[in-house]
This record gives sequence, structure tokens and C-alpha cells, in this order.
Amino acid sequence: MKYGIVIFPSKKLQDLANSYRKRYDPHYALIPPHLTLKEAFNTDLDADNLTDKLEEISQNYEPFNLKIHKVSSFQPITNTIYFKAENNDTLTSLHHDCYKQLPGGEPSHPFVPHVTIAQKLSNDEHSDVYGSLRMLGIEHEEIIDRFHLVYQLENDSWSVYETFRLGRDHQ
Amino acid sequence: MKYGIVIFPSKKLQDLANSYRKRYDPHYALIPPHLTLKEAFNTDLDADNLTDKLEEISQNYEPFNLKIHKVSSFQPITNTIYFKAENNDTLTSLHHDCYKQLPGGEPSHPFVPHVTIAQKLSNDEHSDVYGSLRMLGIEHEEIIDRFHLVYQLENDSWSVYETFRLGRDHQ
Repeated sequence: MKYGIVIFPSKKLQDLANSYRKRYDPHYALIPPHLTLKEAFNTDLDADNLTDKLEEISQNYEPFNLKIHKVSSFQPITNTIYFKAENNDTLTSLHHDCYKQLPGGEPSHPFVPHVTIAQKLSNDEHSDVYGSLRMLGIEHEEIIDRFHLVYQLENDSWSVYETFRLGRDHQ
Repeated sequence: MKYGIVIFPSKKLQDLANSYRKRYDPHYALIPPHLTLKEAFNTDLDADNLTDKLEEISQNYEPFNLKIHKVSSFQPITNTIYFKAENNDTLTSLHHDCYKQLPGGEPSHPFVPHVTIAQKLSNDEHSDVYGSLRMLGIEHEEIIDRFHLVYQLENDSWSVYETFRLGRDHQ
């Protein structure tokens, strides 16, 4: 089964991201707006094996402040435009733990925490869209207190298997 | 905010449902296949207020066997076609608790646990599709050990807020 680990931010930020994704992101209907902690990976492990590890991981962290102050682009690597999240120790360590303690190999690229708002644009579209979105800018902060294990269905959409709360002591 | 409470069944059943929903359900892209425990409801309560109650509820139940042996239709009330789940005490009580212990008023109709595979069809389409799906039939069983609190985004799609595991003792 193909899994991924993501943060779904607040409704407010998801609605804002969707207002752009609707026009500029072909994955719009496949998954709500998200910040990816671990890219899609295949494993034969049971989901319950993964959730045990993710629960342990989640207990090592406290809720943190997600700050987004910039619209950015991965060009020239890809034409993906995104809300750039300020990196912080929690995000870096969560990303690290998700790779180190779960199957799926090494990250394929350096960790740039972000919420995608446009992708697979032509170069001309990218120039236009990035030009205007960069001008609009973004100022957003929120507390993140959870992340999600998701899995991919046959139609390429993603379904949520489980939520993990940061720093919650189960008792 | 508008919330709902649903069970997302296994990938296998979701894939099967989606193979029909893709053609016959205009909500196909808005939410993965699901069994609704509590219909969409509006409340000003914080999500965390709801999750506290839902966590209490979830601890009163054990995982249960979901049995689906029939394709059925709500006609003449609506042209919705669905996988009909066998009712059982857990489903009935979960449904009851979700209405009794959370805001949102009374159920608008009797509880018929189901996974929708087609809706908003014309009468002619309904006859054709129901005729062939009923012939195909379905034989499916699986263990359900979780349910989800979901909320609706501005674009009418649904995002998962949290998962609740049945009978899990948090310690």
C-alpha cells in the first residue's frame, strides 16, 4: 500500500490554498491542502505497524507555531508554487523521524516545508501565476497540534488512516 | 463550521465503491467512500470540544464486523444507490450517541447504515444503474476499528479533523 504523512492545516489556510489550487493544481480533487512530512512510500507493513511508530513519534513533540509569510516556487526544478512555511526544530525533527523510523528510504530532496498551491504549470503559466501570487503574498500563523497518516486509493486520491496528536499523553 | 462523523472502510471497499462513484456520484471528488454515522451539522463549538466527547464515546465500543451483502436504493425517497451494511448494536448505538451527545439536532430520517455508490441520478439512469448493480451484488466483510470527525471546506470537500479508535484504552 502507498502511504504518506502530512499535516492538514486549519480550515482557513486550506480554503485559501484551495482558492488557488482549484485553477492551478491538477491534484486539487485528490487530497485537501497539506504540508508533507514524508513523501509517498510503498510498504507491505500493516498500517497498524506504522501507527504504533507514529504514535511514539508524536508523543515526543509539542504543538508548534506554523508561520507562513511567503509565496515561493521550486523553479527551475519544478514549476510548483507554494506557501513556504518557516522551518523550525519541530518540523525538521518530525520530518527526520518519519524517514528514520519508517520504511520508504531516504528523502529524495532537502526538506522545504510547504503547502502546494499550483503545480504542473507550463513555463508561461508559471511566470504569470507566480508573478501575481508573489505580489499578493501571505501572512499566516497557526498552531499545529496533529499530523495524519494517509494512504492512496486506486483512483490516486488519498484517504486518512489515522490522526496523531502532538504531545498528547495517552492515559 | 460544518462537521460530519463517518467511517472510512478499508481501501478494498473504498476502491470498489469508487469504481461506481466515479461515474454515478457527483460527490466523488468531495470525500472518499464512507459510512455516515452523523449527517453534516453546524456548530460554533470548537472542534476540540467535539473531539473530547467523541473520544469518550469511542472508548465505550469495541471493533466490530461490518457486513455488506446487498446493493440497495432509497428510491422512491431519493435515487441514491448504496452498499447496504447489516445493522448491528454497535452501529446503532454509535449513531445514537453521536446524535445524543453532540450538537446538531435529531436525525432527519431512520438510520440505514450504508456506503453511497450513486446519487442524483435521473429516474431512467437510476433504473439502469440499479438494475445492473443489484445483479452484480456484493459480498464483503471487514473489521471496523475507527471512525472520523470530518469538516467541510469552502469548496464543499471534506477534510479529516481526527480519528477515533474503538475500544482503545489510552495509557
